[in-house]
Amino acid sequence: MDCIKNIVICGGTHGNELTGVYLAKKHGWLLANQAAAAACRRYIDKDLNRCFALSNLNDNDNALESARAREINALLGKKGSENAPDFILDIHNTTANMGVTLILSSSEPALLQISAIIANEFSNIHIYLQPEKRDESPYLGTIAKSDVCIEAGPQAHGTLDAELFFKVERVVFRFLELIEAWNNGALPKISNFETFTEIRSIDYPRDSGGNITAIIHPALQGKDFCELKNGMPVFMDFDGKEILWEGETCYPAFINEAAYYEKGIAMSLAERFLHS
Amino acid sequence: MDCIKNIVICGGTHGNELTGVYLAKKHGWLLANQAAAAACRRYIDKDLNRCFALSNLNDNDNALESARAREINALLGKKGSENAPDFILDIHNTTANMGVTLILSSSEPALLQISAIIANEFSNIHIYLQPEKRDESPYLGTIAKSDVCIEAGPQAHGTLDAELFFKVERVVFRFLELIEAWNNGALPKISNFETFTEIRSIDYPRDSGGNITAIIHPALQGKDFCELKNGMPVFMDFDGKEILWEGETCYPAFINEAAYYEKGIAMSLAERFLHS
Repeated sequence: MDCIKNIVICGGTHGNELTGVYLAKKHGWLLANQAAAAACRRYIDKDLNRCFALSNLNDNDNALESARAREINALLGKKGSENAPDFILDIHNTTANMGVTLILSSSEPALLQISAIIANEFSNIHIYLQPEKRDESPYLGTIAKSDVCIEAGPQAHGTLDAELFFKVERVVFRFLELIEAWNNGALPKISNFETFTEIRSIDYPRDSGGNITAIIHPALQGKDFCELKNGMPVFMDFDGKEILWEGETCYPAFINEAAYYEKGIAMSLAERFLHS
Repeated sequence: MDCIKNIVICGGTHGNELTGVYLAKKHGWLLANQAAAAACRRYIDKDLNRCFALSNLNDNDNALESARAREINALLGKKGSENAPDFILDIHNTTANMGVTLILSSSEPALLQISAIIANEFSNIHIYLQPEKRDESPYLGTIAKSDVCIEAGPQAHGTLDAELFFKVERVVFRFLELIEAWNNGALPKISNFETFTEIRSIDYPRDSGGNITAIIHPALQGKDFCELKNGMPVFMDFDGKEILWEGETCYPAFINEAAYYEKGIAMSLAERFLHS
């Protein structure tokens, strides 16, 4: 990877994820969905962080967020063009117990190394690989040539947890320092670290009307990035009946994320890799 | 207090407080704000649980929730009339660490005694007195001659925590059993218990534009119903500066409730009473 020079930091892509909203206001970073932040809602018409596929950017959808996506794309220099930013860091919150999770859309060695250094320096940091086809990816970060999404939780949407706020702030500034070190050929090397690679997501059990019929099992609640093995409890129905996991050994994340009930996601499943 | 016969249990007065929404669906209880529950939002036009003062019920405000309040009032038998229910139990969630809190709008001895028995039988139950002038009170429960509001947390709005779901369900059914015991003159007596009486609420520090300039101090986060004394940290500004409590010894509740940012409430303050 070349020097990372043109960097954009943004928050409030979802208006009720307040760590990013208030960090953006504090530091003058890009407040991506201003209208949703003013209303303290995830979005007004549609999820802004699903509007950045090239096909979305090139249509003329009237939704508030579609217009805002085109505006941000023009402001930042246009996805897929030479003028696009080198790097976007986009700050999110989750109701899941994910600590501070660095989501990488590619396993680009410089960003992986920077993330590994941060995971080594701070407590409760996770590196999560979610490989994307950039052109088709709907995420804001994919405007840039490379990006990292920060997920911080657990935090109820519409609230601010002081510890998470200051921790995410320190992580962002450390990330910038380490980018500078990379640019100067002075990035330290860490060889022992773990990453989680997303396999797929699973939905809640639902009835024919689409209503959920079971919820996260109490034994799985808050157990993001812990091992889930065949036969372990995963859901509980409203009468208290346990539903056991029938599948491969995996590591769930985004367990019980509020915004994902409507997206049909109870959790995402990942594989764990130990790098050495 | 006379026999408590005509009882209404309801949930979903706030559409994104899912314990009550799903308990109401499971048991066929009143789903108070169906439209907001369908949208998984607290409310559509205005907060339904601020629409039940007699003055609100008698005006002809067009807001969705105003119309729904009039509809519920007519359905249940009309606030202030002989046909009003004897008792309403209304189920809510909070993002604050309040366990299961039984909020009593009066210190009516039968309800206080039932609450004390439940606090003795279950773990992490709090009794919170919020004396109301019933006619002027905007809360749904005040349609009835008496009421208890259940607040269960911490739970992010728009999510379901299985442990809280089943605990609240058990509390509701135990409440009904104990009402039956009261009606039969067979209510056990508990003399040692604690209650918290609301004094007032306090807001976040704000700038002249109404924007919050500090958040809950990490040392106070999650410390609902713990003692707050003069000189203890209460807020932290966005630069990390501590703001200390200057006031009477009290016991905060509703610390960092998501829905209260817009209402200008950072927490409510209560006095603690030991009954013996």
